[in-house]
Amino acid sequence: MKVQKMSEAPDRAARLSDTSRVETFSDGVFAIVITLLVLDLRPPAVPPGQLLAALLEQWPTYLAFVTSFLYVGVVWLNHHAAFDRIRRIDRGLHWANLGILFTTTLLPFPTAVISKAIRSDNPADARTAVGLYALIGVLLCASWLVFFRYLSRHPRLFEHDIEARFFERECIRGWAGVILYATAGVLGYALTPAVALAIFLAVPIFYAFTSHGLLYELPVIVHPVARRS
Amino acid sequence: MKVQKMSEAPDRAARLSDTSRVETFSDGVFAIVITLLVLDLRPPAVPPGQLLAALLEQWPTYLAFVTSFLYVGVVWLNHHAAFDRIRRIDRGLHWANLGILFTTTLLPFPTAVISKAIRSDNPADARTAVGLYALIGVLLCASWLVFFRYLSRHPRLFEHDIEARFFERECIRGWAGVILYATAGVLGYALTPAVALAIFLAVPIFYAFTSHGLLYELPVIVHPVARRS
Amino acid sequence: MKVQKMSEAPDRAARLSDTSRVETFSDGVFAIVITLLVLDLRPPAVPPGQLLAALLEQWPTYLAFVTSFLYVGVVWLNHHAAFDRIRRIDRGLHWANLGILFTTTLLPFPTAVISKAIRSDNPADARTAVGLYALIGVLLCASWLVFFRYLSRHPRLFEHDIEARFFERECIRGWAGVILYATAGVLGYALTPAVALAIFLAVPIFYAFTSHGLLYELPVIVHPVARRS
Amino acid sequence: MKVQKMSEAPDRAARLSDTSRVETFSDGVFAIVITLLVLDLRPPAVPPGQLLAALLEQWPTYLAFVTSFLYVGVVWLNHHAAFDRIRRIDRGLHWANLGILFTTTLLPFPTAVISKAIRSDNPADARTAVGLYALIGVLLCASWLVFFRYLSRHPRLFEHDIEARFFERECIRGWAGVILYATAGVLGYALTPAVALAIFLAVPIFYAFTSHGLLYELPVIVHPVARRS
Repeated sequence: MKVQKMSEAPDRAARLSDTSRVETFSDGVFAIVITLLVLDLRPPAVPPGQLLAALLEQWPTYLAFVTSFLYVGVVWLNHHAAFDRIRRIDRGLHWANLGILFTTTLLPFPTAVISKAIRSDNPADARTAVGLYALIGVLLCASWLVFFRYLSRHPRLFEHDIEARFFERECIRGWAGVILYATAGVLGYALTPAVALAIFLAVPIFYAFTSHGLLYELPVIVHPVARRS
Repeated sequence: MKVQKMSEAPDRAARLSDTSRVETFSDGVFAIVITLLVLDLRPPAVPPGQLLAALLEQWPTYLAFVTSFLYVGVVWLNHHAAFDRIRRIDRGLHWANLGILFTTTLLPFPTAVISKAIRSDNPADARTAVGLYALIGVLLCASWLVFFRYLSRHPRLFEHDIEARFFERECIRGWAGVILYATAGVLGYALTPAVALAIFLAVPIFYAFTSHGLLYELPVIVHPVARRS
Repeated sequence: MKVQKMSEAPDRAARLSDTSRVETFSDGVFAIVITLLVLDLRPPAVPPGQLLAALLEQWPTYLAFVTSFLYVGVVWLNHHAAFDRIRRIDRGLHWANLGILFTTTLLPFPTAVISKAIRSDNPADARTAVGLYALIGVLLCASWLVFFRYLSRHPRLFEHDIEARFFERECIRGWAGVILYATAGVLGYALTPAVALAIFLAVPIFYAFTSHGLLYELPVIVHPVARRS
Repeated sequence: MKVQKMSEAPDRAARLSDTSRVETFSDGVFAIVITLLVLDLRPPAVPPGQLLAALLEQWPTYLAFVTSFLYVGVVWLNHHAAFDRIRRIDRGLHWANLGILFTTTLLPFPTAVISKAIRSDNPADARTAVGLYALIGVLLCASWLVFFRYLSRHPRLFEHDIEARFFERECIRGWAGVILYATAGVLGYALTPAVALAIFLAVPIFYAFTSHGLLYELPVIVHPVARRS
């Protein structure tokens, strides 16, 4: 009994720490980013008696808050769904994951810039802000693209019952995001920022609906042996 | 021995990651919200020698801090108690959970607005602030309502030994909160903000006392086989 | 094989979630408090060329940062050591734990007040700041006292091989802290703030050295059967 | 069956909590530090129409953000790789770990100082900022040095199949960092800050490439029995 435990314990500890530390760290980053967004919602500094008007005037900040919360929520769900299929992680995947965290962490910055530019009501600034947001959006989608490409080429990293084609299909969603954000940036800069804003709002909704879902929602019939032993 | 482990390991890993990632992420958000509240407690910017008076004058901020801490504490306990009864999570429940996180994350905003409005001592602003707080309160309770309704209709998501009626009963508490906050908002706006403040303070205390408690506090006698194998 | 797993899985999940969620949430709060302290370390706003002098002048901020980091570090170690001995948690202990989190979360506030008051160099303000810090210190130690008293009276909550007297002994350390901080507050207010500051610095060091240590440092000889099966 | 579980459960719980709480707490701190860095990326306060110019002018802030993100990423990977090899943790190692957290938490401070000093374009301030960054860099590497030295002298703390020489080799990397940062500080102060900046950027890249990697990347052949039982 004792000998058996001796040899088993390190192995299980390694497996758990393996998957869980990357997820704990990533969850921490996502939780902070999603919560930091609220720091931009401040009581407006106005003379007494004008609080209501000032609160209503802040609507671009509220919209930016909702969009970004939605976005980080989708990113977290995606991350969760991806790691459900990942068995082990090597150094390359660690860096690809840090790339996703990096671009997600950036998100509050263009969000604040855009909500401030809309309120300042200057066309040149609105264009700049829209361009910045589109740039970060392209980076964000590109970081997922790199992540999924790396996975699709390293089948030893994912669960036995997942096909490499799963991750290839995810790459298409990554490319779609890159192209959508680039288009939004170009149209928003050349035509009018409103077009870009509409696309910015549409992308997380598109991602939310095309998300492949979490592993335990997959039909159990496909690989009953491997999944449910 | 080895074969057995092969087939078991992915399954257990999936189960653990399953429950734990949503909880880790939610815990992270709750921990940050509860801690961010302290950022509003700042050393007051006053001329030398007037620190004591300025600190005492900040009492609405302290009260707001205590109320919000209590509130997030209750939300966390509720969340903990609910997830103790949840076995698996599907996409719908993920979004319902994100709804709870969204409304909880909002909390520091009306808290800061109300504590600032009370200090500014302007009746119109106090009404606005009270209305905003009531609105967020309604949203918060409504998000729990959605969460528990979803659960009560998807029995495959919760532990075998929990009745669907448990979650139905929780819905009543959700409705109570929605009605209490709406009443507080209307009374605070129409009559005097003080009434609303009293209700705002009473609601988390009400929730703390009516909380159904954590799973391991339930009498073991009811389902001894399922719970303690 | 399958039947056995069916009945085992929920039980283990409950146990893990049980201990781990309280610890994850508390760890989150401690991690944020210990990190938020750095937000007070800002590049000083001075005219060009005076950065070095301004950085050196900020020494009370650095000292406050180090003291508070040390303090939260000790609180975390204490919390870790306590929960190593706790098997299950009921509602009372949840609230006692939230009490500890509440007082720990408060810490950055008196820290910022005291470091600002020392720099402003006004005797009345320094006394106020010292009094505030002592007050929060008393609350912090009192919250541990409540926590350990609750534990010592509910033996069913802790591991079989821990004596209730362990937690009784911890109460003495709690009382020591309450008395030390109260004394520091009185002396600092009546005599000179410097005395209080010395005690404030001494208390976390006292706690660090009298800490009973973590469970796995206890001599294995005492309860070899229960601990190492 | 039941008796066996009774005696096993506390032991496993202890092991899990043991490794996992230190890692959860450290992950929390790293996640917050890496995310707080974005708080320095703010929409610039400029008159309408000058947003683009103002955003471009902020380049030192972006560079500082990237460098620090990279740095904390490397610190996290190092920490992860080290704890993969650690089986248990005693009080000494706890404090060594808190030392690493302390120096990592400090990082946003010199980062903000340096990015502000570069923009202010004053040679004396740039030297001071470079000196401060070098000082914190030396402290950071020294804290890893202490951590690895402690480990190399306490073989009972790490996994059976890791040689003490592994941690001795890590000490060399620690010394390299201490010397590189000290050199950067001296050269940056005596010659020109640009030299120091180049070294500051080079060190995390050096660490990223010389990192010994994660445990599960090691050839399985070396200790197949101990690792994969």
